[in-house]
Amino acid sequence: MMRYSKLALVSLAALALACSAYAQDPLPSWNDGPTKQAILEFVKATTTQGGPQFVPPEARIAAFDQDGTLWVEHPMYTQVMYCLERVPDLVKAKPELKGKPPFNTVLELLHGDRAAMEKLNMQDLELIAAATLSGMSVEDFKAEVKKWIAEAKDSRWKRSYLELTYQPMQELLRYLRANGYKTYIVTGGGQDFVRVYAEQTYGIPPEDVVGTAGSTKYGYDKSGKPFLTKEPKLILNDNNAGKPEGIYLMIGRRPYAAFGNSTGDKQMLEYTKTGDGARLAMIVLHDDAEREYAYGPAEGLPDTKVGTFTQALYDEAKKNGWNVISMKNDWKVIFPF
Amino acid sequence: MMRYSKLALVSLAALALACSAYAQDPLPSWNDGPTKQAILEFVKATTTQGGPQFVPPEARIAAFDQDGTLWVEHPMYTQVMYCLERVPDLVKAKPELKGKPPFNTVLELLHGDRAAMEKLNMQDLELIAAATLSGMSVEDFKAEVKKWIAEAKDSRWKRSYLELTYQPMQELLRYLRANGYKTYIVTGGGQDFVRVYAEQTYGIPPEDVVGTAGSTKYGYDKSGKPFLTKEPKLILNDNNAGKPEGIYLMIGRRPYAAFGNSTGDKQMLEYTKTGDGARLAMIVLHDDAEREYAYGPAEGLPDTKVGTFTQALYDEAKKNGWNVISMKNDWKVIFPF
Repeated sequence: MMRYSKLALVSLAALALACSAYAQDPLPSWNDGPTKQAILEFVKATTTQGGPQFVPPEARIAAFDQDGTLWVEHPMYTQVMYCLERVPDLVKAKPELKGKPPFNTVLELLHGDRAAMEKLNMQDLELIAAATLSGMSVEDFKAEVKKWIAEAKDSRWKRSYLELTYQPMQELLRYLRANGYKTYIVTGGGQDFVRVYAEQTYGIPPEDVVGTAGSTKYGYDKSGKPFLTKEPKLILNDNNAGKPEGIYLMIGRRPYAAFGNSTGDKQMLEYTKTGDGARLAMIVLHDDAEREYAYGPAEGLPDTKVGTFTQALYDEAKKNGWNVISMKNDWKVIFPF
Repeated sequence: MMRYSKLALVSLAALALACSAYAQDPLPSWNDGPTKQAILEFVKATTTQGGPQFVPPEARIAAFDQDGTLWVEHPMYTQVMYCLERVPDLVKAKPELKGKPPFNTVLELLHGDRAAMEKLNMQDLELIAAATLSGMSVEDFKAEVKKWIAEAKDSRWKRSYLELTYQPMQELLRYLRANGYKTYIVTGGGQDFVRVYAEQTYGIPPEDVVGTAGSTKYGYDKSGKPFLTKEPKLILNDNNAGKPEGIYLMIGRRPYAAFGNSTGDKQMLEYTKTGDGARLAMIVLHDDAEREYAYGPAEGLPDTKVGTFTQALYDEAKKNGWNVISMKNDWKVIFPF
């Protein structure tokens, strides 16, 4: 019985701790107001047993866009920076690419004005992405990303990209999980790329990351050991309509809550919000040039190609009962540091 | 304190129950022998904290083929029976198909010798599958499968297909989950089809079912409400090399244990077994004509097109340290009934 008694004490302590944590504000980095209130009410409604909007634990799915929703996406998506910064090594391995566009342009930019990288067009980026994101084993790719992300630094804050996550969203992830929600990332970024750091950064395991995905090819090395090679063939473009399509493919259930920040999240938010019962659709507006960035062009904010939030999307949000999260007004702090 | 005391008592009761359950045989439907021993040793090795083969809980992934591994696949895969039995309704909705092969043949067979359905060739089956598995909303498809599977009966046992699961494998699923393993279905069958009943049948939620998958298309109904339509376009053929490729796409981690029964599982078993540390690869041999079916052609068993287990696969199993599960010798009972 001695062992049981000790365990009972531990259980009691854990319980007491859980109760006291619950009594505290679960979202301390959020300012009081309608946005925070909407989150608290949604969670209460969907977790109150016997209530009209109760959702059984197994159906509690929440989907989060990553770039611009969970972490900084300006001046350029982290994965694009990875692809660009892989170019020197790529050219070393394949010298025939050295003088060829867009690789020559990237090499010049890496030594000069990195902000000018925005000028690379979509076709350039696709070529660079194909060359740096495929053709290697999945293990080699994972090792390369792991190494890069441990060392790479953002140009403005001089900090690891992994630190540039939004503290209020980290609290929201934990709050939803504490209430039985399974939190998924549903990103337009590369599924393989995000899976490398999602567990350490967001507490989200690889199998709960849905993203743009290419095919792999099963084969054998010289010793007969099987391995998978990343191929330059798209299976899922997890943007726009691809987000609900990707959710159906990878999760198979409609989310009860979804969070985004740009036109690429429109269909995911629509799909989530039009389900039965209580549904939460929220969209982050980057309106805080001082603490982070300001871009839209919604509400007269500066236009951008990275994480565009149009006025039409803003109007749809207001019309359909989505909550717009104002970084400036709703968030007490932006970063954990 | 009253509430705490009650809860403490409940905790103690749950703990006592767990301890007593653990003391009992976790696999009572398995005969003692090297196969059962291999399972018990694998679980012990991978869950013993501080042991050389300890696997952290988040990496404990086990992959199960469905047809022929978790439930009966003879004389014909359940999903093929679904497709065939959908043909009368399909022809009612599209009368132009009535006189056309292979639909006319199916209509004749449904009124006559159902065993003769094996004679439909692969091209016939592909046409029937495309016609019965796509072109509808994902909700309509789910409702149709749900209705069919609740009523359909197997021809030999006159029981619901959902009852024809193997009791020893049900115990194995529960045993692995009780030891922190996440159990996935990795099936050559349709992902959407299996997801409809996997939770009630195996305790496996939709998001943990990986299978052959087609694309969907996002659109809006007349009222502007979004919905997804199933399209006749393959995204993932989750057979053979497609199994490890599908595991990488949908889970993103290599399993520590995998279970199959046919040539379609070969690559999944290879991929699993060649990972570092303790890995368990097991393959069910249907060698029990009396209690279930006998087919191979491995070990001189009758040849079959449904769930083929070749001698080459048997030899690979022996060479690479996979365990062959003999239904006849390793399983005390086959079905829960």
